[in-house]
Amino acid sequence: MSDAAATESRTAMATITFSPSGETIEVPAGTSLLDAAILCELDVPAPCAGQGRCGRCRVRVTSGEVERRSNAGLATTEILDGWAVACQTYVGGSAEIEVPERRREAVRPHGHAVAEPESLPIGCDWRQDPAVRTFELDIEPPSLADNTSDFDRLRRALAQQHGIEEVRAELPMLRRLGTDLRMANWKVSVTLEMRDWVFGTYLPPRLIRIYPGAFSHASMGVAVDLGTTSVVAYLLDFATGRVVDSASAYNKQIACGDDVISRIIYAKRKRGLGRLQRLAVETINDLLEELQARNGIELYEIHEMTVAGNTTMTHLLLGLDPQYLRAEPYIPTISASPKLAAGELGLHANILARVHVMPSVGSYVGGDITAGVISSGMFATDKLTLFIDIGTNGEMVLGTKDWLLACACSAGPAFEGGGVGSGMRASAGAIEDVYISDDTWEPTFRTVDDAPAVGICGSGLIDLLGELFVTGLLDKSGHLDLEAPTARVRVRRGVPEYVVCRAGEGGADHDINLTESDISSLIRAKAAIYAGFEVLCRSVGVDLADVEEILIGGAFGQYVNIEKAIRIGLLPDQPVERFKFLGNTSAQGAYAALLCVNTRHDVLEVAAKMTYLELSADNTFMDEYTSALFLPHTDLANFPSVQEALAKRGAGPTATPESP
Amino acid sequence: MSDAAATESRTAMATITFSPSGETIEVPAGTSLLDAAILCELDVPAPCAGQGRCGRCRVRVTSGEVERRSNAGLATTEILDGWAVACQTYVGGSAEIEVPERRREAVRPHGHAVAEPESLPIGCDWRQDPAVRTFELDIEPPSLADNTSDFDRLRRALAQQHGIEEVRAELPMLRRLGTDLRMANWKVSVTLEMRDWVFGTYLPPRLIRIYPGAFSHASMGVAVDLGTTSVVAYLLDFATGRVVDSASAYNKQIACGDDVISRIIYAKRKRGLGRLQRLAVETINDLLEELQARNGIELYEIHEMTVAGNTTMTHLLLGLDPQYLRAEPYIPTISASPKLAAGELGLHANILARVHVMPSVGSYVGGDITAGVISSGMFATDKLTLFIDIGTNGEMVLGTKDWLLACACSAGPAFEGGGVGSGMRASAGAIEDVYISDDTWEPTFRTVDDAPAVGICGSGLIDLLGELFVTGLLDKSGHLDLEAPTARVRVRRGVPEYVVCRAGEGGADHDINLTESDISSLIRAKAAIYAGFEVLCRSVGVDLADVEEILIGGAFGQYVNIEKAIRIGLLPDQPVERFKFLGNTSAQGAYAALLCVNTRHDVLEVAAKMTYLELSADNTFMDEYTSALFLPHTDLANFPSVQEALAKRGAGPTATPESP
Repeated sequence: MSDAAATESRTAMATITFSPSGETIEVPAGTSLLDAAILCELDVPAPCAGQGRCGRCRVRVTSGEVERRSNAGLATTEILDGWAVACQTYVGGSAEIEVPERRREAVRPHGHAVAEPESLPIGCDWRQDPAVRTFELDIEPPSLADNTSDFDRLRRALAQQHGIEEVRAELPMLRRLGTDLRMANWKVSVTLEMRDWVFGTYLPPRLIRIYPGAFSHASMGVAVDLGTTSVVAYLLDFATGRVVDSASAYNKQIACGDDVISRIIYAKRKRGLGRLQRLAVETINDLLEELQARNGIELYEIHEMTVAGNTTMTHLLLGLDPQYLRAEPYIPTISASPKLAAGELGLHANILARVHVMPSVGSYVGGDITAGVISSGMFATDKLTLFIDIGTNGEMVLGTKDWLLACACSAGPAFEGGGVGSGMRASAGAIEDVYISDDTWEPTFRTVDDAPAVGICGSGLIDLLGELFVTGLLDKSGHLDLEAPTARVRVRRGVPEYVVCRAGEGGADHDINLTESDISSLIRAKAAIYAGFEVLCRSVGVDLADVEEILIGGAFGQYVNIEKAIRIGLLPDQPVERFKFLGNTSAQGAYAALLCVNTRHDVLEVAAKMTYLELSADNTFMDEYTSALFLPHTDLANFPSVQEALAKRGAGPTATPESP
Repeated sequence: MSDAAATESRTAMATITFSPSGETIEVPAGTSLLDAAILCELDVPAPCAGQGRCGRCRVRVTSGEVERRSNAGLATTEILDGWAVACQTYVGGSAEIEVPERRREAVRPHGHAVAEPESLPIGCDWRQDPAVRTFELDIEPPSLADNTSDFDRLRRALAQQHGIEEVRAELPMLRRLGTDLRMANWKVSVTLEMRDWVFGTYLPPRLIRIYPGAFSHASMGVAVDLGTTSVVAYLLDFATGRVVDSASAYNKQIACGDDVISRIIYAKRKRGLGRLQRLAVETINDLLEELQARNGIELYEIHEMTVAGNTTMTHLLLGLDPQYLRAEPYIPTISASPKLAAGELGLHANILARVHVMPSVGSYVGGDITAGVISSGMFATDKLTLFIDIGTNGEMVLGTKDWLLACACSAGPAFEGGGVGSGMRASAGAIEDVYISDDTWEPTFRTVDDAPAVGICGSGLIDLLGELFVTGLLDKSGHLDLEAPTARVRVRRGVPEYVVCRAGEGGADHDINLTESDISSLIRAKAAIYAGFEVLCRSVGVDLADVEEILIGGAFGQYVNIEKAIRIGLLPDQPVERFKFLGNTSAQGAYAALLCVNTRHDVLEVAAKMTYLELSADNTFMDEYTSALFLPHTDLANFPSVQEALAKRGAGPTATPESP
């Protein structure tokens, strides 16, 4: 076929019919089946964002002509039966495609992935000073002698009865104003957003809702921690300043990619960004509806919202193109968010409720981190403080009240269980805690919810790596001792591995193990994070040992065993009392911003003040990283407590031959 | 049937199927066919808003059970053929209804209903100082060493290159910002709304559009005069401050009522308000598209809009419930409009373009009048000035630069040709100018566009009334002289009338006449307006003769012959040099507000300063009105020029027997 003919055949159109939905679409030949399904807004999962890696976007070609570029993960019988990987299969001519009904996945994170409302600092230092307030008004009814407009009449009453000289109202409020006032016989309660702030100026209060008569309604706020994996919403009662309930769910965007990079790739597809935006909103809306139903409150009684999330999550929520976050030099569209209302984003709260999105510092230091710095209090301390939030990326901030320096290291998903054979999220059945006997090299472990073991979550992986190392089964380079007299260490398909749990043990239905390749992923991840600490300190001329407080935020941080994390060189070897676990600092920051209007200025100031250090532009980072690719580190002198532990064990692993 | 059974049968549901559209709807029995059609969004005309007066909402019942409460205007053969008046015919059970295809009506006003752009004060005193400005920027591209967000980078360039320290951007702008900047290789032109004003504070400039490279686009504004009958849009080039084109059309809302009262009644119907809002927007959008097509500009190049209209029109455009405008004590929802963007209203301009709606003073003194007062300059003069805008209502403002007093008199539609048998709008074929011979009592007339005579428009009616009076055919009470030796005066169906044009004369295909009942309508209309002048003057202790300038604005005012209007007692008998015709003052005010940002403050100040006098609450109004129910007035001494004209004619009509 000539080039011209090839071009022609690619631009030929083909009709794709999807069953059982019956959706039909005409697309150019050469379109992937996944793209065609997205155009039809069908729910085909694509956790790898259609990069052909996960094989989850299976569909069945029941008739027609397709071109398969890969059948990754499909058995020959499946292929013969028409199954295809949608992202790797391209439209040749018209075809009929069956989309399998999606196995319902758990919507709600289990176990310790989600902070309980109790972990929020209720009764904390933040002054209860919300932006939302309600005032009761007794408005003089109009007459022929006083034909002042309804809105001006309300303004006059607010000024006379509450000293509020001006008030703004938007179209949706004005459209019902005449009827609202008359139905209430001119006695109303008005909910206002006070102190709406634009570039150093407070705007006049803004009308959010008019209630008839004396105020007998709820006035609520919702703080959302919009995580890449989990989303948590906290319901705050403005009357008391207390969190009255919370709800959590997996981020529905997971269907479009497990991590931020996959989602950015997904967003590039036609209608992909729209779908991601919609899924973020749907996830939050489900939580809002759950909170409303459980607490007997109406949608319109949610008068304000705050959202903290990483830069990719907030870009997607706002429908901002995330492509430039991923491409060098990694630039976000905005740091501070514009004024937003719930109705504008499609959130199921009062449509006029303000939505405050926590500002970000860079593409990989987002609103979750600025919120965290606020909630940690480090922006107001004299002590040299290191704030850490470890997830797919390790984000860290070093500083005092006078300066703040932040960076992000791409740790990869290893600590969240990704890219590790037996890795998993911290849900039921995840091994979260491991001990290996010095004598027998047999493991003892605990699982989330004490469920039968299914895999290993982040904290379990850190434990396991540390245990293997200090028991001498693993050398500092990450090689297993194949000579060790235990059947737990074995070689499968040429790769050495340690079997944590055999099929049948504790209810497990398959072997759960850690391979040298998994170990290598984990070492690279911890090396990236540790190198980040070093570069951050060096660049301001301090030493890690000078850091007076190490604050650990984020969902993951809550369950890490510090000593075991130090043992593998993930955390610096400092006295345990210098470490503090803060819980879900992102959610706490969002809550603080909801509770106290000044916090919103603080977080903007923090974001503006924070200097972002781009590690890929730092020429010392690679050296630090390479030095950290050992257990615990090339320079054992930096890890005296580990040195001591190894020394106690005598010759132990330090005696095994090195292969740097 | 018992009451209970009646209630039950009313709540039974019936299915109505409309042909030829095929729309089907289930409605409770007892719903009118017009309401059912509106629910289906079918285009059934209802100029009287479904009050059973106009008979225009004809449909044909092809099957099923309906209850006819009136067959107004239908012939028996038509009724037998199934024709029904939709607003007066109620659903009994399921039925099939045929909606006749609508005769295409003229969309564009003819003749002198619409001001030409030349009539706008081009090169006037208003300083060319628009709010919209465009700045060229050469933005430093991002790098790993400088990861400032796209928006902050743009802000930095604006500050450094143009001294503009802050700028705001909304979501629709931010959603494309990353791509806009990169496609333009970081050299862009940004169009900003400067000096956006909220309660005494200027907000930072607001981003409306980003254009690639040096600015080579148009930057346009549109000023709209949103009349009850006609809508005119003027296209303004911000680069020159000149009006470059204009377009006009009938207000599509006419299908829902000829006058504001009918439309307010229509708005009460289910989905009625939504339809009226949509029709206002559609009318303006047609004009915007016409201006865009004819001038080769893009939708997004319309960067700002202003709209002047009466209070009902602006309420309907904004989707505000107009019911309270009509019910005593006649209260509008708002006087000043909130901040609006074109996208919010669905207008086909740049979605971020600000739409400034001229503020109103009361339910019947609207933005057309405040705009008129601004464009007339009376708000800045020392002279005692009377501003008049005569339409369905006669609105008038008396004052100087120090004070302004306004009122509105319900003149009824007579001067717009409504409620008068041969009355019509000033479109082709309307008799606009009449002369009656003293000797023969034969008329001579001129029609709009010199087309065959079809009816008589407002200026023609004033002429005719005056001519009949001064020629002695009509006495001061409005009775025709049946003894006069002319066949032009005759009695038909018991009502005396004067035949202006017989079928066949000048191409007319039917008699065109003025009956005593028409004359009575016209006298009531002119009496209401004249009484308004008197009350306005009295209430501030001045005399009509003290008024130094009488400014006549509005579309109607442009074509009135002052002497003839004085002759019937519509205008006060003052020297002709005190009168000034200003043309379409509503459009001029909208144009001034578009051209010069300070005018927007002036008009808000004028609206706030103006005192509204509610005539229905004034106990002298009825006396003044009654005194004015004669030609020219009970007190002929107030009309010396008319007295003189009558005297010249000798015995003439003053000698006819009076019957007060």
